Amino acid sequence: MIRTIILGQGMVANYFAVGLERIKTGEIPPYGVPLANVKLRRKIEEIEIVGAYDVDAEKVGKTVYEVAKKWIGEVSPIPEKLKEVEVREGVHLRSLNGVLSGVLGLERKMTLKDALNVIIDQWREMNPDVIVNVITTENAKPINSINELEERIDRNDIEKLTATQVYAYATLKYREETGRKAAFINAIPTPVANDEKIVEMYNRKGLPLFGDDGATGATPLTADLLEHMATRNRKVEFIVQFNIAGNIDFLALTLPERNIMKEITKVSIIKDILGYDVPHYIKPTGYLEPLGDKKFVSIHMEYYTFNNLKDEIYVNVRMNDSPALAGLLVDLVRIGKICIDKGICGAVYPVNLFYMKMPGPPGSKSTSKILAFQKLKEWLKEIDGLVDE
Amino acid sequence: MIRTIILGQGMVANYFAVGLERIKTGEIPPYGVPLANVKLRRKIEEIEIVGAYDVDAEKVGKTVYEVAKKWIGEVSPIPEKLKEVEVREGVHLRSLNGVLSGVLGLERKMTLKDALNVIIDQWREMNPDVIVNVITTENAKPINSINELEERIDRNDIEKLTATQVYAYATLKYREETGRKAAFINAIPTPVANDEKIVEMYNRKGLPLFGDDGATGATPLTADLLEHMATRNRKVEFIVQFNIAGNIDFLALTLPERNIMKEITKVSIIKDILGYDVPHYIKPTGYLEPLGDKKFVSIHMEYYTFNNLKDEIYVNVRMNDSPALAGLLVDLVRIGKICIDKGICGAVYPVNLFYMKMPGPPGSKSTSKILAFQKLKEWLKEIDGLVDE
Amino acid sequence: MIRTIILGQGMVANYFAVGLERIKTGEIPPYGVPLANVKLRRKIEEIEIVGAYDVDAEKVGKTVYEVAKKWIGEVSPIPEKLKEVEVREGVHLRSLNGVLSGVLGLERKMTLKDALNVIIDQWREMNPDVIVNVITTENAKPINSINELEERIDRNDIEKLTATQVYAYATLKYREETGRKAAFINAIPTPVANDEKIVEMYNRKGLPLFGDDGATGATPLTADLLEHMATRNRKVEFIVQFNIAGNIDFLALTLPERNIMKEITKVSIIKDILGYDVPHYIKPTGYLEPLGDKKFVSIHMEYYTFNNLKDEIYVNVRMNDSPALAGLLVDLVRIGKICIDKGICGAVYPVNLFYMKMPGPPGSKSTSKILAFQKLKEWLKEIDGLVDE
Amino acid sequence: MIRTIILGQGMVANYFAVGLERIKTGEIPPYGVPLANVKLRRKIEEIEIVGAYDVDAEKVGKTVYEVAKKWIGEVSPIPEKLKEVEVREGVHLRSLNGVLSGVLGLERKMTLKDALNVIIDQWREMNPDVIVNVITTENAKPINSINELEERIDRNDIEKLTATQVYAYATLKYREETGRKAAFINAIPTPVANDEKIVEMYNRKGLPLFGDDGATGATPLTADLLEHMATRNRKVEFIVQFNIAGNIDFLALTLPERNIMKEITKVSIIKDILGYDVPHYIKPTGYLEPLGDKKFVSIHMEYYTFNNLKDEIYVNVRMNDSPALAGLLVDLVRIGKICIDKGICGAVYPVNLFYMKMPGPPGSKSTSKILAFQKLKEWLKEIDGLVDE
Repeated sequence: MIRTIILGQGMVANYFAVGLERIKTGEIPPYGVPLANVKLRRKIEEIEIVGAYDVDAEKVGKTVYEVAKKWIGEVSPIPEKLKEVEVREGVHLRSLNGVLSGVLGLERKMTLKDALNVIIDQWREMNPDVIVNVITTENAKPINSINELEERIDRNDIEKLTATQVYAYATLKYREETGRKAAFINAIPTPVANDEKIVEMYNRKGLPLFGDDGATGATPLTADLLEHMATRNRKVEFIVQFNIAGNIDFLALTLPERNIMKEITKVSIIKDILGYDVPHYIKPTGYLEPLGDKKFVSIHMEYYTFNNLKDEIYVNVRMNDSPALAGLLVDLVRIGKICIDKGICGAVYPVNLFYMKMPGPPGSKSTSKILAFQKLKEWLKEIDGLVDE
Repeated sequence: MIRTIILGQGMVANYFAVGLERIKTGEIPPYGVPLANVKLRRKIEEIEIVGAYDVDAEKVGKTVYEVAKKWIGEVSPIPEKLKEVEVREGVHLRSLNGVLSGVLGLERKMTLKDALNVIIDQWREMNPDVIVNVITTENAKPINSINELEERIDRNDIEKLTATQVYAYATLKYREETGRKAAFINAIPTPVANDEKIVEMYNRKGLPLFGDDGATGATPLTADLLEHMATRNRKVEFIVQFNIAGNIDFLALTLPERNIMKEITKVSIIKDILGYDVPHYIKPTGYLEPLGDKKFVSIHMEYYTFNNLKDEIYVNVRMNDSPALAGLLVDLVRIGKICIDKGICGAVYPVNLFYMKMPGPPGSKSTSKILAFQKLKEWLKEIDGLVDE
Repeated sequence: MIRTIILGQGMVANYFAVGLERIKTGEIPPYGVPLANVKLRRKIEEIEIVGAYDVDAEKVGKTVYEVAKKWIGEVSPIPEKLKEVEVREGVHLRSLNGVLSGVLGLERKMTLKDALNVIIDQWREMNPDVIVNVITTENAKPINSINELEERIDRNDIEKLTATQVYAYATLKYREETGRKAAFINAIPTPVANDEKIVEMYNRKGLPLFGDDGATGATPLTADLLEHMATRNRKVEFIVQFNIAGNIDFLALTLPERNIMKEITKVSIIKDILGYDVPHYIKPTGYLEPLGDKKFVSIHMEYYTFNNLKDEIYVNVRMNDSPALAGLLVDLVRIGKICIDKGICGAVYPVNLFYMKMPGPPGSKSTSKILAFQKLKEWLKEIDGLVDE
Repeated sequence: MIRTIILGQGMVANYFAVGLERIKTGEIPPYGVPLANVKLRRKIEEIEIVGAYDVDAEKVGKTVYEVAKKWIGEVSPIPEKLKEVEVREGVHLRSLNGVLSGVLGLERKMTLKDALNVIIDQWREMNPDVIVNVITTENAKPINSINELEERIDRNDIEKLTATQVYAYATLKYREETGRKAAFINAIPTPVANDEKIVEMYNRKGLPLFGDDGATGATPLTADLLEHMATRNRKVEFIVQFNIAGNIDFLALTLPERNIMKEITKVSIIKDILGYDVPHYIKPTGYLEPLGDKKFVSIHMEYYTFNNLKDEIYVNVRMNDSPALAGLLVDLVRIGKICIDKGICGAVYPVNLFYMKMPGPPGSKSTSKILAFQKLKEWLKEIDGLVDE
């Protein structure tokens, strides 16, 4: 069994929980799970959600079943099994400031330090193998030292901390206090696997760390289109990539400070893949409620081909945003457990390269997803992550 | 120097000749040449066009400069250097029947056997390293035996032969009569590298054979898009891929028998990449004169993602058709010579896999172009095809 | 009440029956019905389906409810009301030859003349105001004279007749024998409102005739895009319009003789709207089963703008094919009855111009749909077809 | 002759001047000029550019030929005739603040009042029939009274004035001081024909006023697509319309205050055409230099069709931005002169409705461009603006 805790019971978590249970009962095939057809040492059936956290008063105290029913019940059946897990109150810092803070109505009843202790006590009971972070995107900088992080927690300095950093630290603390190991999967853009100090601590404590920012949406497609261009030595003249959706992530991204963050994430792939930079406009462009969770992506490129002639390409996509990430999590949770089994720790580059937009450890190069997937499979062979048959 | 003969002075050959000379003088960068940034043992500057053949009365007897001027002079400067090569009369069998036969006005003045002797005498003088076949698409089946091929030539049975087969045979005959080796590059769909008997003979005679059907246009893009889907285990529900252009290839493809041939070529990639077949409509759809050589491609797919939800993708492309293939030839000619240098012969799979739509030898699996390019580079390292530096 | 008979209980008829009843009960809004927001003298609520015909053994004898349940039950609720109408056996000539003839298993048990008498007897009882023809597309030429048509029926010369012609004749015969008037709506490409002799007879007998080929799908969109170009005096250089679907209409159109017919229909709009002809590729391109009734349309145009510069436009659409036509029928049935009320007869150009791809009477000009809609509304005012309020 | 003054020698003015002269000499056809094929009383050949103004130090003192050569010389031949017109220094207020102010290097050497006098003296000599305003987009509110406008000019209160308002006032002043009439064409979004007080004065002084914001780009296309939806009573669920270009207008629009302005302009069309509002994201999205003046537009809509089913449409366009507006000016200048000929004054709605995005007078309804073009032609007939033949 792979005991899994979900931080942030939003759309991704709902789809993860629902899709996972439906796959486990054979109701649906494991589409959208990259390694589903590869004989991974850990099976999808082993994944068990043992805990869920959120800061939304409308979710806390409800079962995952109730939450999923409300949010995705119209587009998907919700398995009864999810009645067994209750959403608990998580750490609420700045992630929803300016967007939903008024709506949520949750008040912080305790200091961060106390909250941390409560959580670790809960984890002691839940006994997790994997912690999955899918809370709403926050704007953050890497920390300077673990000491500083600890001091901020001690001082309850919530302005200089993000929930993600607190959870990443809690995972370390849980290791320290219980001696047990849990992998931390950071599927949002807040730097964790790209935070040198945090990576260092995960290495030291023997914990696997996957992040940052799950590679879904338009960016992986753009990456593979660029790789396609690169294999023919076409000179890309410009790239336009518009994104718009009607989910909370895009609502949050309309706040300028978050949008800038997202852009930094995406730009690095161009040079890493093509070997040169390209004038581009790549960013989450807007929020439009009726699009819901199925984002609209519009990509346009021009490139020079042989004899200096120009070609043009236009790509329009409607893609379900949250389920795409949920599908990756089904692999990441299993690989997290395999890493613990095999004693692999720190920011695991071959994993992050494929599954993350900003693969940690810091300074890592990006690559196209098609090549990253090959490397991932080779690495899984090497570490004996695949079952012989 | 890599002495190169071009069979069929059409659009591809014109772009090849023009682009090549412009790159050699530094006038333009080598965009569209996949290995231009890789240190291949043979340089672009070494390629020399020593002969050109066509069956069109309007081209025969003219210089490549004059032909290129007429056909692509409006969209590209034509290098003076091309005044040095004259287009000679080639073997005219069925390739243009029903399309241009009336227009051409060429009459066959000699038997096939005599023509073959004339051509080999010319080659004796030209001393080619590489023969590039880019004549108009012909409908053909693999031959049953080399003997039968020889008998048909002897009997002048032009109904049961294609020019491509005659040229592939001429290259073997040239080897036999002069002791010299030349690589044969078949960039059109007529099966040569997929013809068991021909492959066998090239192996026996020590000649490299690349083919069939240069991998340009929409198919490589579709292949890489499918690989992208495969890496996420998305279930593709259907594929539509329309193609339309205004060049002679699309005019030829409006003849039903050719169109069927093209479709066979393309379909195999789906199963090879995804592991399952997908309902699809993939074929050259039509001819529309004002599109010229810049084809319009429209691709549409739907696929299942995680939790059985559906996404949709639409791709529209305008791409220069002939220059794309011409760019590949710049690599193939160089690799052809490297194979001769290194004693590699027969249908060379790692080369064909990347550069061809229907990679020979017969029965070979296809793959996405991004993965094929990785394999090609690994193979080039192995055979010492790359320069150390 | 507007007593309506449907010929051909296929997709269009199913959507017509289902959508109509759902609108009548207020379950859904009348989207897709052009005049729904205009105060037409005849209300949607007045439409009553009193008869339905088909030649498919799987449908004959079933209720419209059962047929609709089977064919569109997965995508739409089916109103109970439709249990009241039974599908009767219609005239089966060549419409499905080569496609489904083997499957259908229906054998013609009587001569055409006898069948005609049976049908008119049934109509005598049904007492229809409007006959709607939505049988499968047939290839046909206009008839030379009504006499000849009658002789062919007498001779049972089924090779030289189409079911549509027989039904159009039956409507005239019904007028003659009962003294009652019914409007005939031909929503398929077979020429009826474009058949001079038939139009003449409808005029003589005082019956309204709407046709031919309901204006749905990509053509109306292309027409309005062209009108958009025309209002800016842009010079369109070419038009590509691909269509593909997975319904029986597209399956039928894969037969070459039908496809040619479709193309004739569509081309005339270009010159009528722009004032000049444009090189184009506009035709139903293919059949792909998983697309179902939701066709994929891809349009590409280039045009010259001011100072002779060139712009490019690409349009991709997924549109439900049959419901679009069904929506038009809701208007046409009502206008048919209004024409009878007001004594309007023959091929009614202002109606056909908007609702039909090939507006009769023969020789009529096409126009964009936006302008046709204005003319339709003006005409309705003139003939007192609108309710004052 | 129609003596024409251009305010703002930017891209639009360059294309206007160049295209106009090329059409006059017969070098190119009048594509992009909506009424070119209609027998308008005033011919294109009559238009004469007698003056040009700009505030850019790099343009002032140069001939229009030199300016056009520099800015569009790479994509278009420049007629020698344009050597006859010199670009004079215009009124520089806030239009380029924050974008190019540093670059321009022009300093205001005189008060607004003095500048106004200078300009009117120049116009006295130029004797214009039409003043065309195509300066860079400015953010402005309508004025409260002409008195207030005059006071601001007197006080030299440049913070509360825009160049457009000053020019619109100068045209009135010119009328007052010389007794001559000139039409004012405001092709940019700054409200002039939508400024009640200004419209009132133009009415009183007998001057025609066309504005605001020339209807080019994606908005007219969206308008006509919406009209297409309206004629079928489809319920549009949402509209996404992205725009991106690399010209100075898009650079300017990246300033938040301008972008907001643009959005106000565009939204009103939806309700005016469909009769209901639709959730939408319609705005100039970004700036990307290599796109140049050929903007990329991506439109996506979903709508409900009959039986409440949903269709999807995607439109991708590359369109030359400035030439499109220049083409409209060729008509507007001629209609301006016709209005003077016929004594028509004030904000002329039938003209503005077709040519402008925000048709004045204030409070005017928008409509689709296809319908507006019909109304324009009817109005031209009524006012005797068309030549009989």
